[in-house]
Amino acid sequence: MKFTEVDEIELPAAFDAHVHLRDGEMSQLVTPTIRQGGVNQVYVMPNLVPPITTVQQCLEYRDRLRAIDPNVDYLMSLYLHESMTPETIREAKKAGITGVKSYPAGVTTNSSSGVLDYKLFYPIFAEMEKQDLILNLHGEVPSTPSHAPASSNTQDPSAPTQAITILNAEPAFLPTLRSLHTTFPKLRIILEHCSTAAALSCVTSLGPTIAGTITAHHLSLIIDDWAGNPYSFCKPVAKTPEDRDALLRAVVRSNGRFFLGTDSAPHDRRSKRGGDSVAAGVFTQGWSVGYVLDALGRGVERGVIGEEEVTGEVLEGFLGKWGRAFYGVGEGKGERIVVKRGKGEIVDVLEKEGLDVGVVPFRRGEKTWGVEWK
Amino acid sequence: MKFTEVDEIELPAAFDAHVHLRDGEMSQLVTPTIRQGGVNQVYVMPNLVPPITTVQQCLEYRDRLRAIDPNVDYLMSLYLHESMTPETIREAKKAGITGVKSYPAGVTTNSSSGVLDYKLFYPIFAEMEKQDLILNLHGEVPSTPSHAPASSNTQDPSAPTQAITILNAEPAFLPTLRSLHTTFPKLRIILEHCSTAAALSCVTSLGPTIAGTITAHHLSLIIDDWAGNPYSFCKPVAKTPEDRDALLRAVVRSNGRFFLGTDSAPHDRRSKRGGDSVAAGVFTQGWSVGYVLDALGRGVERGVIGEEEVTGEVLEGFLGKWGRAFYGVGEGKGERIVVKRGKGEIVDVLEKEGLDVGVVPFRRGEKTWGVEWK
Repeated sequence: MKFTEVDEIELPAAFDAHVHLRDGEMSQLVTPTIRQGGVNQVYVMPNLVPPITTVQQCLEYRDRLRAIDPNVDYLMSLYLHESMTPETIREAKKAGITGVKSYPAGVTTNSSSGVLDYKLFYPIFAEMEKQDLILNLHGEVPSTPSHAPASSNTQDPSAPTQAITILNAEPAFLPTLRSLHTTFPKLRIILEHCSTAAALSCVTSLGPTIAGTITAHHLSLIIDDWAGNPYSFCKPVAKTPEDRDALLRAVVRSNGRFFLGTDSAPHDRRSKRGGDSVAAGVFTQGWSVGYVLDALGRGVERGVIGEEEVTGEVLEGFLGKWGRAFYGVGEGKGERIVVKRGKGEIVDVLEKEGLDVGVVPFRRGEKTWGVEWK
Repeated sequence: MKFTEVDEIELPAAFDAHVHLRDGEMSQLVTPTIRQGGVNQVYVMPNLVPPITTVQQCLEYRDRLRAIDPNVDYLMSLYLHESMTPETIREAKKAGITGVKSYPAGVTTNSSSGVLDYKLFYPIFAEMEKQDLILNLHGEVPSTPSHAPASSNTQDPSAPTQAITILNAEPAFLPTLRSLHTTFPKLRIILEHCSTAAALSCVTSLGPTIAGTITAHHLSLIIDDWAGNPYSFCKPVAKTPEDRDALLRAVVRSNGRFFLGTDSAPHDRRSKRGGDSVAAGVFTQGWSVGYVLDALGRGVERGVIGEEEVTGEVLEGFLGKWGRAFYGVGEGKGERIVVKRGKGEIVDVLEKEGLDVGVVPFRRGEKTWGVEWK
């Protein structure tokens, strides 16, 4: 296959290892776009309001999602929270829940109930390791508050020498990942939405129980793209061209350590363009496979990755096989898709009769690869 | 004076060395707020549409501004452009125009007619040096286009090793500043709206013909503040806490090398919250002195600068005396202001009966220092 010259590729239906399907009307709007993007299996994030912290909430949420689209396989997660006990983990395992998502407090949408100190959760992690539940990490350290004393004037020699901002929040988290891996070497951990070369190197340097997801939009965007564009603004923010290019290389040189998790994060258009603040999140669900193929194509054109590196094996792996292997799940019904270059049209606004929400997708109004189900 | 304890300070009316007053209705709206901010003398940027490239355009623009508020002294500038000749510079000098502003092509609002190669303008700079016109530099290099080949794959060993983004655009410009200073050592140059510690060090390291302006908002903001807040998004973007703290220190340790240039940049609220893109610019004109005093106060609280460093001399210098000295202009009518802590109310939206524009100011709805004219 010469990737930049083929116009049609047949692939297994994709697995998206990181989706935000929300609840209520928003869920009604976005859940039906999973298959439209070429995906038939998803790992569902638990950051609803309130967050999903019990097995019962989680199973009920799965039922609501199944009612919207029964043709998707929903792998479910709990929101790591102080109300949990090792017993919660055992129950979760029995109930078929797949993993637990950890949000550092306050770093992104609906993360206000998140983690302040990972050590408090060591009994949970120990039980997860035993039960083989996956730990999904939002790998960012909260930013230093604006009113914090200047670090260079501090009297404490152990104080960090650099303040944390959205730029270095992910690299600053990596020691935590290393430490968790050292303490729980058999605990399978995914560093979600890797956005920096440093994160990729860290994952690669650790043992095979550590993997990373990469979003479609981080394969395309850099900081200049989201500065001034609300629809490209997400957490973690897209970083430098060097970081983006490292992500593209990681896709094709992954050896299974990195796979697609879109972090598709719908926000009503009013929260993107309404008040003083812009909600963080890029919506990519409905065109997920297409965005990835476009990004890889541009990577080849720019000489970041070699044409010969974008093999059928890489596409099958990144878009599903490697993630399914890490999660230990099968391909389900063995469904296949055919993707067609330029045949996908990204809508301006995702809307639906009777629903009072609307979401502006990434690259609104542009073309991408279309998806047909076999 | 113990700065954090005084509630009233009497000062000479301020000089704002970098303002955008626009034209037409926007000009009608924002020009009357200059004195409201405590300022009676301004250096006016020429990036209208089309840009001000002739002496006649410039004088007519000054007349329009004087008609709006005759109680402000408008120092005028031309927009560096290929249509200019050394003769333009001589004419400008005779007509009382103060300087020439250089925009790198495409980096900010109305900069599409900007500079691609500074060497082309050496005859202009030579004449400016002779006539003692000030060169005002927007000191950023344009970002590397997204479709550019990956730098690490380039065959050219002299190629830059790092792509340019809005983060390193200013540091990457500094070699150009050094080179202009070496070539034209007597040309007085201002590096406008310094936003990085690197820019401050560079200015300080060069001869006394080089100075820098600092905005009120760069003394307050960091990257986390504008990510997700359209009203704090400007070019150059606010950078790290370390950069902001270096700016605060530069104010009090300036020795006259840095002075206030607000870069107050009004955009209609619709271009901030309307279409897909967010216009770059923070509007600070009407509360300019207050914002600076607030930022210095927070700098003291955070231990970035010492209370004893915020002297009457520093305030008088940064807010007017040092800039006026560099520009070689007097204090005009010797007007004085009294600033009163907490007595200034920042409006939610600046509007005016009969004008179809509205501008959201920095820190909308908050309190700052009030200004009374003696």
